[in-house]
Amino acid sequence: MSEKLKQALEAAFEEATRIYNNRGFQRRIGFGQKPALISVDLANAWTRPGNPFTCEDMDDGIIPAMQKLLVAFRRWNFPVVHVTTCYQITDRNNPNTDMGLWHEKIPMEVCAEKDKNVWAIDSRIAPIEGEQVLIKKRASAFHGTYLAGYLRAAGVDTILVTGVTASACVRETICDGLADGFRPIAVKEAIGDRIPGAVLWNLFDIDAKFGDVVPVARCIEYLDRIGQEAKIKRSAA
Amino acid sequence: MSEKLKQALEAAFEEATRIYNNRGFQRRIGFGQKPALISVDLANAWTRPGNPFTCEDMDDGIIPAMQKLLVAFRRWNFPVVHVTTCYQITDRNNPNTDMGLWHEKIPMEVCAEKDKNVWAIDSRIAPIEGEQVLIKKRASAFHGTYLAGYLRAAGVDTILVTGVTASACVRETICDGLADGFRPIAVKEAIGDRIPGAVLWNLFDIDAKFGDVVPVARCIEYLDRIGQEAKIKRSAA
Amino acid sequence: MSEKLKQALEAAFEEATRIYNNRGFQRRIGFGQKPALISVDLANAWTRPGNPFTCEDMDDGIIPAMQKLLVAFRRWNFPVVHVTTCYQITDRNNPNTDMGLWHEKIPMEVCAEKDKNVWAIDSRIAPIEGEQVLIKKRASAFHGTYLAGYLRAAGVDTILVTGVTASACVRETICDGLADGFRPIAVKEAIGDRIPGAVLWNLFDIDAKFGDVVPVARCIEYLDRIGQEAKIKRSAA
Amino acid sequence: MSEKLKQALEAAFEEATRIYNNRGFQRRIGFGQKPALISVDLANAWTRPGNPFTCEDMDDGIIPAMQKLLVAFRRWNFPVVHVTTCYQITDRNNPNTDMGLWHEKIPMEVCAEKDKNVWAIDSRIAPIEGEQVLIKKRASAFHGTYLAGYLRAAGVDTILVTGVTASACVRETICDGLADGFRPIAVKEAIGDRIPGAVLWNLFDIDAKFGDVVPVARCIEYLDRIGQEAKIKRSAA
Repeated sequence: MSEKLKQALEAAFEEATRIYNNRGFQRRIGFGQKPALISVDLANAWTRPGNPFTCEDMDDGIIPAMQKLLVAFRRWNFPVVHVTTCYQITDRNNPNTDMGLWHEKIPMEVCAEKDKNVWAIDSRIAPIEGEQVLIKKRASAFHGTYLAGYLRAAGVDTILVTGVTASACVRETICDGLADGFRPIAVKEAIGDRIPGAVLWNLFDIDAKFGDVVPVARCIEYLDRIGQEAKIKRSAA
Repeated sequence: MSEKLKQALEAAFEEATRIYNNRGFQRRIGFGQKPALISVDLANAWTRPGNPFTCEDMDDGIIPAMQKLLVAFRRWNFPVVHVTTCYQITDRNNPNTDMGLWHEKIPMEVCAEKDKNVWAIDSRIAPIEGEQVLIKKRASAFHGTYLAGYLRAAGVDTILVTGVTASACVRETICDGLADGFRPIAVKEAIGDRIPGAVLWNLFDIDAKFGDVVPVARCIEYLDRIGQEAKIKRSAA
Repeated sequence: MSEKLKQALEAAFEEATRIYNNRGFQRRIGFGQKPALISVDLANAWTRPGNPFTCEDMDDGIIPAMQKLLVAFRRWNFPVVHVTTCYQITDRNNPNTDMGLWHEKIPMEVCAEKDKNVWAIDSRIAPIEGEQVLIKKRASAFHGTYLAGYLRAAGVDTILVTGVTASACVRETICDGLADGFRPIAVKEAIGDRIPGAVLWNLFDIDAKFGDVVPVARCIEYLDRIGQEAKIKRSAA
Repeated sequence: MSEKLKQALEAAFEEATRIYNNRGFQRRIGFGQKPALISVDLANAWTRPGNPFTCEDMDDGIIPAMQKLLVAFRRWNFPVVHVTTCYQITDRNNPNTDMGLWHEKIPMEVCAEKDKNVWAIDSRIAPIEGEQVLIKKRASAFHGTYLAGYLRAAGVDTILVTGVTASACVRETICDGLADGFRPIAVKEAIGDRIPGAVLWNLFDIDAKFGDVVPVARCIEYLDRIGQEAKIKRSAA
């Protein structure tokens, strides 16, 4: 992103923040009692070079942030859901394709179920036993999936959301998560995109209206605190 | 089913039909313009002997009816969706299981994703290229899946529903299908269950309120008619 | 219901129970930590005489059971949602009706939004301040409504379901409730229908696969126990 | 919006468009065969001065554009859905509020169901008989409502979306509409917001990935063409 764009966006956010504060927007939703990690589309098509879906800032930003988060989630055995996207019928001329209408906007035909390497979760953050891999067909990890019902059954009230892209799947997951009754936390350093400015303006909109944008360090502090508390409660019982 | 039960149910349905007719229930929803086949849980755990989920009337009833239907669907290239059910985490003591709460009612832990043979579609009605296999986690083929969005994108307005069981997954699929805006047709000879009477009373409720129960022969007549019409329309265009 | 039908159903249930027990069905889901009452379609069209939707057993069965339940829910301030059904466009010839396709099976055109008396909650169990009235368009109180998201936000994990009818809206609400991650409890004496046997066979199916059928007295015991515990916990905090 | 912000965003969009074009994004989804108008939150709280939700550009931009669109929709009797937002329980301390968790981000407590003037559709674009008013609780007009099922039952395949705000309810409605199987068209001059730049960057993201941004004049041309064709087809039948 150019310095000029960054400055212009920051000036716009400053003015918007004045308006929002005057009107009671940009409130803090905060962390709840039981978190889950929803990691969106950190699969090879998005995390590795050379694919139409390849995103920026993977190797030095998002993957290392995710690795830290995963350590904390696994330490306390909080649920982790790795979300990815693929399709059984990727012929764009087949009216019965499970891509629905989305391929008429973006190149979803790239993500064929039969090419597992394309949609497999990046090996640097590979799922371990007990973690779910959820295949979605649309942008949101909630829309057209069992995610909300599963999270409610597991007693989850807070979702930490990571992955790509800020302007599509991550944003939709956060908006739906709130609507489905969960506290969405956007993990700042672990969310990416592929065009200049998109992370910035989408996180600004999210933080104003749908979920709190929180640095990974504070997320890990929270996980350790709530994990410790849950452990003490279990010992006492 | 005992003759006694059958007679008692038929007497009850007769009385109910009088009440329903007086009050304007049991209307016909009819066939629409573009059908899809939604075949529910005709996978080995349900269609073959020796599983807790094994159903009645497979070899001489449901499978042959399905085979006839598939021929008609494939002749005209109408969409076919084979639905099945399995889970990544089948340890009932793991609070993070994707079984949600359902294993607290029925033995869903039997359907492990890793045991593909358990949830694979019965080879006698195996999917062919261009047909989808949809994995669901709950009873309804619509709940927590992309099915409704997919069917709308494909222009489908009518769903022919087959499979098992009448008292759970088939009934839920039909009720949700109607609510999602599709005309549900329950294909009479292609719906089964595992306890006496359940097919009878569930099809009665469905026919009264949620979808038309129609014999397979009439379904095939409809498919051939609408398929022929669609072909003529395409030639004319 | 005739004695003959009752006996035939009981014999069938006995045989089914043997099959289900052998196979691990009919498990108990049990009560959770925070209940809500979902009372389905106990509005005048269903509770009072003279409407196509009028149900049986209201004055001496369902309404008194509901009154007892409401006292217990209100004592502990657990959430109560009164669900009803009505439509803005009830002309069956208008393709744009919000009845969708349901009027093509049952006489939904009776429930016009403008005739408030038709769909108003029965005055004997009228909502009080702080209780919601949720208008639905389809059978399930969850399908096409904000109910699941609301309940999750309120921390609810258990739904006690009452109302009518066993063969449609109550059953759908229970099945969806389970799929959405809540423990469904069907309150036995507070669920009705309008045709002989329908309460019996639908509660049997529900209890086998989707939720526990529990007498109102045991529900009230549970509410009082959990309410007392929650009060103590709040005082301690 | 400052000239500086506008220029910086346009430069960013230019660069992004290069990336997107190289990779096969920003495709055109196009118009389908049966449109509906989904007008989001053009109610007094958003369209009139003096409310926390008040948006920009109403009197000279969005309302006149909507008036033109409504004339075209009504000329051909295509479905119109006026969407608005209100709550039964607006006490933020009541854990059972139907606001769910959203009031913990933005001032939804302003929109009380009992204050009808707050959430009534703006009188300059008031609903007429046969048009629906849909009350939603969350951002998207689809999430937790019967909208998708209703539109499918009515045979709709294309949604023209208008209203406010670009960064919340309009964007969510478009994303969900696509996921639910409808072709979303964002009507350019009829979409607003309340902070500088938000319309611009949200429409850019939408057009790249979720729906086509189309000027109102072209939308009206389409409506007149498709309306005329439908009329001819009906006469011929």
